[in-house]
Amino acid sequence: MAKEITLRSDNYSQWYNDIVKKAGLSDHSAVRGCMVIKPWGYAIWENMRNQLDKMFKETGHVNAYFPLFIPKSFLSKEAKHVEGFAKECAIVTHHRLMNDPDGDGVIVDPSSKLEEELIVRPTSETIIWNTYRDWVQSYRDLPLLINQWANVVRWEMRTRPFLRTTEFLWQEGHTAHATKKEAIEEAELIQDIYTRFAEDYMAMPIIKGIKTESERFAGAVETYCIEALMQDGKALQAGTSHFLGQNFAKAFDVKFSDSNNQMEYVWASSWGVSTRLIGGLVMTHSDDEGLVLPPKLAPTQVAIVPIPKPTEELIKISNHIADKLKSLNISVLIDTDDQKRPGFKFAEYEMKGVPIRIGIGMRDIENNQVEVARRDTKLKTLVNLDGIDRYVQDLLVQIQSNLFNRAIDFRTSHTSEASDFEEFKKLLEEKGGFIKANWDGTAETENRIKELTKATIRCIPQEGSKSDGPDILSGKDGVHKVIYAKAY
Amino acid sequence: MAKEITLRSDNYSQWYNDIVKKAGLSDHSAVRGCMVIKPWGYAIWENMRNQLDKMFKETGHVNAYFPLFIPKSFLSKEAKHVEGFAKECAIVTHHRLMNDPDGDGVIVDPSSKLEEELIVRPTSETIIWNTYRDWVQSYRDLPLLINQWANVVRWEMRTRPFLRTTEFLWQEGHTAHATKKEAIEEAELIQDIYTRFAEDYMAMPIIKGIKTESERFAGAVETYCIEALMQDGKALQAGTSHFLGQNFAKAFDVKFSDSNNQMEYVWASSWGVSTRLIGGLVMTHSDDEGLVLPPKLAPTQVAIVPIPKPTEELIKISNHIADKLKSLNISVLIDTDDQKRPGFKFAEYEMKGVPIRIGIGMRDIENNQVEVARRDTKLKTLVNLDGIDRYVQDLLVQIQSNLFNRAIDFRTSHTSEASDFEEFKKLLEEKGGFIKANWDGTAETENRIKELTKATIRCIPQEGSKSDGPDILSGKDGVHKVIYAKAY
Repeated sequence: MAKEITLRSDNYSQWYNDIVKKAGLSDHSAVRGCMVIKPWGYAIWENMRNQLDKMFKETGHVNAYFPLFIPKSFLSKEAKHVEGFAKECAIVTHHRLMNDPDGDGVIVDPSSKLEEELIVRPTSETIIWNTYRDWVQSYRDLPLLINQWANVVRWEMRTRPFLRTTEFLWQEGHTAHATKKEAIEEAELIQDIYTRFAEDYMAMPIIKGIKTESERFAGAVETYCIEALMQDGKALQAGTSHFLGQNFAKAFDVKFSDSNNQMEYVWASSWGVSTRLIGGLVMTHSDDEGLVLPPKLAPTQVAIVPIPKPTEELIKISNHIADKLKSLNISVLIDTDDQKRPGFKFAEYEMKGVPIRIGIGMRDIENNQVEVARRDTKLKTLVNLDGIDRYVQDLLVQIQSNLFNRAIDFRTSHTSEASDFEEFKKLLEEKGGFIKANWDGTAETENRIKELTKATIRCIPQEGSKSDGPDILSGKDGVHKVIYAKAY
Repeated sequence: MAKEITLRSDNYSQWYNDIVKKAGLSDHSAVRGCMVIKPWGYAIWENMRNQLDKMFKETGHVNAYFPLFIPKSFLSKEAKHVEGFAKECAIVTHHRLMNDPDGDGVIVDPSSKLEEELIVRPTSETIIWNTYRDWVQSYRDLPLLINQWANVVRWEMRTRPFLRTTEFLWQEGHTAHATKKEAIEEAELIQDIYTRFAEDYMAMPIIKGIKTESERFAGAVETYCIEALMQDGKALQAGTSHFLGQNFAKAFDVKFSDSNNQMEYVWASSWGVSTRLIGGLVMTHSDDEGLVLPPKLAPTQVAIVPIPKPTEELIKISNHIADKLKSLNISVLIDTDDQKRPGFKFAEYEMKGVPIRIGIGMRDIENNQVEVARRDTKLKTLVNLDGIDRYVQDLLVQIQSNLFNRAIDFRTSHTSEASDFEEFKKLLEEKGGFIKANWDGTAETENRIKELTKATIRCIPQEGSKSDGPDILSGKDGVHKVIYAKAY
């Protein structure tokens, strides 16, 4: 099986597509730019969703659900929002099909044209703030801390599984506050939650920062982000949290009476992560043999393979081990397929990124031991059956932290600093990765560098962004030391 | 608060709308026929979803996700399916907006017209079976036991919150099998799961049956259903499970080689329940004071209200009780709002259907007791603090079973049998409910009765449908004893 994967060194982009396909994460669909998320990919998403949902709820958020459709006129109510968002989208214009009088199929019934077109939500600020107008009268109604898990559609010209698809799944939080301070604190709290999730669960180190004005969300006053580095040296924006000021409250006339009975516009935040994270997970950890999953998000953490065949006795011992592991909340699968050979099964679990594989053969059993293979390092160890449950539990923790440390090391060795533009271009071309450089704070320089190199300012880091020299391109005084990279 | 609800006896339909609105289940939206599911309503849906998801997974099903959009041509591939489904739907015809050259807003860019229109899925058989063609080659690839949690859109002319909305949330299972027998067993297994869920979790008794040909799902060979009875004597179809034969496999050319290397079409089932169940929950248990929730699905099972105010000491005792309850997996909330009066809070929890309310006042505490009020019967009891956790745990079980028994009693007293058409009409008019009657098995009679009375055959019950006399309308020999009712 492994042979079917393109090597990263040969063609990174094809390697990614191979992993996604052969690990059973997603498949193409009949609809341009839309993917099918296959069971193994969806199970990873479920684990991500459950953990994030828990973190949101622990910090006082609740879930709700808002309509899929947005009246066209809503999108133009917030001027910058429509510029940034509303252009490439799916537009519903009719509501009925009829039999084709000239053929077998169906055609759109022209008499079913809608008075106002509906847009399939690309994001839900507009429809949600139109609703919040009815929900908020007084400061007692605030804050609203609401999240929704939903599908959204953006008509992308070039798509890639998980990283950029026409339809994708995400969560979008939309909060309403009585004060500017609270709304900013909320946006920062969520950035912290995303950071914890990325690092502690995905084992994907990130840099926390804020976006420059040109990279900001359309309609936001400030965009907080987490930026990760992929194995090909390109950056991935993994999550964003926006302080929206009073922009949407003003666009949708959402006011509240404060404790002094004064009417004021409500302050807002919005934030989201999506199935794009699955792409980030693949590109952070996987190798030329297939997917590598951090134990905390793996749908199956341990696969037990009886060798050479699932005999009654081997299944009995496997069940015994599985029960011990399950009592420690470890998810485990016993492969009882008697048609496939062990070597085929090993390759399959390797491809799917199952963190630990236990091989059980009669000879080992006679010595009261089993073979434990870890996916991340591919090391195999003979382990005494008596302590197998604790061993596996510890090993899962080790694998989780090894993946994180490996990714940290990769990032460290792929983070450079450029003191002039020649050095910048050389680093970008030869090494890629994150490049720190002083920036004069102008969109002009930012855009010029993007034109010349395709690198963008990923963020102004929240830590260590103090400028210590002139802008690498313009030579003007540096305002921030920012992080440049080519990005997905 | 309670006064704001219309009495059931005055106007049942308005009573339903009042409950939905005032208990915070849903709100209208700016999009015709689409509702906003508010946090309390969504939390009930989450509980339903989690329980159903668990039951599906325990029986070997996995989740996946298929595209929101279906190419128009797919819908006409299965002839009956397009007749039944594809007509009233949301149709995407364009993919870009542009600034209006004559005004401020945006208009549809005419140059962005799609070559083939896309339909927002009303149900996903077509796109899924188009995908299964690539996934199934051999009998070893079968069965596929896949479910998805998704939103769907049907352009309904008359909508009601939860019961019939243009967009709704649901799960749709789509399974593929090597034999007819297996596919039928799957459809029956799911009907059993729906039954257990409705009765054991929703406390909503149902009748298991099969649909007549005219009430069958468009494209199905057999539709299994569960039918519940609402408090106004109307029936609610609460879930359906379809044996699809080889209809979709033939329409999408999905074949497999069996163990003898013969190519055969794949056998199919599909099945779904939706947010409509929330409407069923409301109409089965609620009363003139508000929502009544079965404990197993209540987002908050116990509300603790310090009386008259949340003093430090009362909060301390409340926390102590809450911790004991939480250790028994009981969800509990302490109302620490110091602005609202106890009476207001009581009415609020009554309105929201919280199964148990505990009132804590200093005088009771001195006697080492608290007041426990149950939502279903409104009875209050003074309970000794020492055994409060076990008392509440038992009471939740009692409330769950009381709601079910009450609903069973209601159904029993609203199930009649008619031996001729005059009796049938009289029963339907004066009493409503389920009416058993002999049926000659023809669509002609079925349609005639529907025209004359608006009652439809809800199902041919899987138990006790043996005919024992002539058809009530035609006088021809009875083929089945079926269940008639007016329905939502």
